[in-house]
Amino acid sequence: MAAISLARGAPALELIPAAELADCARAVAEREGATVFAYGPGGGWGPLREWVAGRHGVEPGRVVLTVGGLLGFVLYAESLLARHPGRVLVEEPTYDRPLTILRREGAEIVPLAMDEEGLDPDALEAELGRRSDPPSFLYTIPTFQNPSGRSLSLERRRRIAELVSEHGLPVLEDDPYGLVRFEGKAAPSLLELEGGTIVTYTSSFSKTVAPGLRTGYFVLPAGEAAAFEQRAVSTYISPPFLTQATIAEFVQRGRFEPNLDRVREGLRGRRDAMLDALAKSLPAGTSWSRPEGGYFVWLELGAGRDASQLASRAAEDDVAFVRGSDFVVSGSNGGSSSARLAFSYEPPERIVEGIRRLGALLG
Amino acid sequence: MAAISLARGAPALELIPAAELADCARAVAEREGATVFAYGPGGGWGPLREWVAGRHGVEPGRVVLTVGGLLGFVLYAESLLARHPGRVLVEEPTYDRPLTILRREGAEIVPLAMDEEGLDPDALEAELGRRSDPPSFLYTIPTFQNPSGRSLSLERRRRIAELVSEHGLPVLEDDPYGLVRFEGKAAPSLLELEGGTIVTYTSSFSKTVAPGLRTGYFVLPAGEAAAFEQRAVSTYISPPFLTQATIAEFVQRGRFEPNLDRVREGLRGRRDAMLDALAKSLPAGTSWSRPEGGYFVWLELGAGRDASQLASRAAEDDVAFVRGSDFVVSGSNGGSSSARLAFSYEPPERIVEGIRRLGALLG
Repeated sequence: MAAISLARGAPALELIPAAELADCARAVAEREGATVFAYGPGGGWGPLREWVAGRHGVEPGRVVLTVGGLLGFVLYAESLLARHPGRVLVEEPTYDRPLTILRREGAEIVPLAMDEEGLDPDALEAELGRRSDPPSFLYTIPTFQNPSGRSLSLERRRRIAELVSEHGLPVLEDDPYGLVRFEGKAAPSLLELEGGTIVTYTSSFSKTVAPGLRTGYFVLPAGEAAAFEQRAVSTYISPPFLTQATIAEFVQRGRFEPNLDRVREGLRGRRDAMLDALAKSLPAGTSWSRPEGGYFVWLELGAGRDASQLASRAAEDDVAFVRGSDFVVSGSNGGSSSARLAFSYEPPERIVEGIRRLGALLG
Repeated sequence: MAAISLARGAPALELIPAAELADCARAVAEREGATVFAYGPGGGWGPLREWVAGRHGVEPGRVVLTVGGLLGFVLYAESLLARHPGRVLVEEPTYDRPLTILRREGAEIVPLAMDEEGLDPDALEAELGRRSDPPSFLYTIPTFQNPSGRSLSLERRRRIAELVSEHGLPVLEDDPYGLVRFEGKAAPSLLELEGGTIVTYTSSFSKTVAPGLRTGYFVLPAGEAAAFEQRAVSTYISPPFLTQATIAEFVQRGRFEPNLDRVREGLRGRRDAMLDALAKSLPAGTSWSRPEGGYFVWLELGAGRDASQLASRAAEDDVAFVRGSDFVVSGSNGGSSSARLAFSYEPPERIVEGIRRLGALLG
C-alpha cells in the first residue's frame, strides 16, 4: 500500500474527467487537422482565449494561455523584474514553487504578514512606506491560498486594491482555486476591484478540468499583453495546441460547469473528512484553518511542537505532508510548527486514517 | 494570396501526419485514461523516454523530454550559467532564438567563425587559448545548421570532440534537422564521438513528426540528468503528457520511419526547386549553400548588396525571408549581405516564384 499523501496538491485521479477529455481530444484532432499539430500563436488556442476573455469580460487580446500556470509565473516575474527591478512582495506563508523561481532569478523577496483573513493590508502599507524605492510587484493568492487555505476578506480586498492603485504597484493575483468553492459566497477578485490596469489575474484549468493538460491563463493589463505573449514566444515559440483545443472542446460542449460541480462535490467530501478527523484525532493546542474550498488545510501544531520532526516520524508511519517551513521566505523563522495538509488527492477514508496517525504521533 | 514565406522555419502543413496523429491521440487518451491528464514525471512520458534512450543507446534516466526544444535550451543555459558562469560560445551565424535567450540571461556571447564545413575548430581553439577563464558552454548545430544549412565535416567533428574533451568544455549539440537528410551519409554526432561525458545532445520531434506537439528531448551526461529534470519540474511541474504519449503511440506503431521518408521526400523536392530556381534567377556575384537536408539555404548576396534593403523591397513584392543579420551576435557586423531562405514551408511552385521575384529585385 502506498503511503497516504496529504502532501500532493493534485486532484485525485477519479476527479479528472478522463473519458470525456479523451473524446474531446479525438474530436478536435480529427476536426482541426494539422492546425493543432503545427506552430501557431504563442498566446494560445484562439477559441479558448475567447472563452476565457468572455468569462472575465475583457478583450481576447488581453488573455494569454500559458503552458501551465507556473511557467506563466516565470514569464511574468522575468518581465516585471526586467521592466521594474526591485523587491518582490509575497504573503507568508506562500506557494513554494514561485519562491524557488524568485530565488533562482536572484530577486529580493519580502514576506508580508497574513492571518485568518489573508494578507494583512497594514503590512503591505507599512512595507510601501518603509522604503522609497518601489517594489517590482506583489504576488498574492487571495482565495483558498496555497498553502494556508485562507481567503482574503472583502474589506481587505478593497483596501489592497486601493493601496496598489495609489502606489502604482503591479500585482499578480493567482487564483487557481477560486472556482473550487464548496460553500459561502465568492468575494470579487482584485482584478475586478482594481479594474485591471495594474492587476494581472492568473488561473488555470489544472484544478477545474485536469492538471496534465498544462494550461494556465493570464488576464493582463491592456498595454502589457502583447509583450507578455512575445515573451512566451521567445521562450517556447508556441504552446501545445492539442491540449488547449481539448479544453476548448470540453467547455464548448458545456462540460465545464457540470464537471466543476462534480469536482466540488468530490473535494467537499474530502475536506469534511479531514476537518472531522482533525477534530477527533488531534490533541489540545493544535489548530487549523477551515477553508470553504480549495485543496488545503493549514495546521498549527502549537508551541513546542516541531513540524520537521513530525514529518520524519509520519514518514515512518507512511503519511506524508509538507512542512510549513517550505512555504516561507528563506531566512525567516516561520512555519516551523505548521503543516500544509492537502485533502485533494486521497479518498476520504485514507485522509481519516492519515490524520489518525498524525494525531497518535502528536500524542 | 498570402505572401510567399521563405522565412518560416516550419514544415508545410501537408507534411504533418495529422490524421495518423489524431488516431494516436484518441488511442492513448482512451487507453491511458487519467494518467495522460494528470501531473507526472517532469522528465516526460516514460515510453517515449525509453524509445529515445534506445535510439541513442543510453539509459532512459539520461533522457529528458522537454516542452519543445527551445524551452529545453532555456533550462540548459540557465543550469550551465548557474553552475559554470562564463561566456557562451556560439557559431556565427546561429539560430536567433537561443541568442535572444542568452541576451535575456545577460550572458556574454562569443561568436566563433564558421565556413562551408561548419564551425572552424581553429576559431574554437584560439578562443579557448585567448582567455584563461573557462567558458560556460559551447552551443552548436552541427548538421544542416539553422540558419546556414551547413554541416560540420567529419574531420572537424573529431577535432572539436577532442578539443572539448581536453578543455572540459560543456557542449550543447542541437540536432533537430539531422534526420531530415535527403542524400549523402550522416557523420557521427559530437555526442557519439565524445562519448557523452560532457556533450549534451538535443533534438526534437518538431521536424520529424509535428512541431505543435512541442516535444524536444535532451540526452544528458549521466551525472547531470537528474538536476536537469529537477529544473524542468521547478519551471513547469510536468510537461503535457497527451502530446508526448501521442508521439509514443506513433513511434510504437512503426510510423516514425515511414513518415520520415515521406517528410524527406517532400522536403527534397522543395530544396531542389529552390536550388534550381536560384541557379536560374539569381545574378552573378551571389552564392548559396547546397544542403543535403534540413530546412534552409544560406544566400550570400555579394559585396555591395544589402539584405535589409532587399527584405524591404521583397516584402512589397509579397516575399519574406530572414536577414542574415538576425543570426549574428549583437554588435557584430556580420550577416548584412546574407539571407536565410527556408524551403520547408511553401510548395515548390511558390518557392520558384519567390526566388524569381528575389532575382528580379537583385537585377
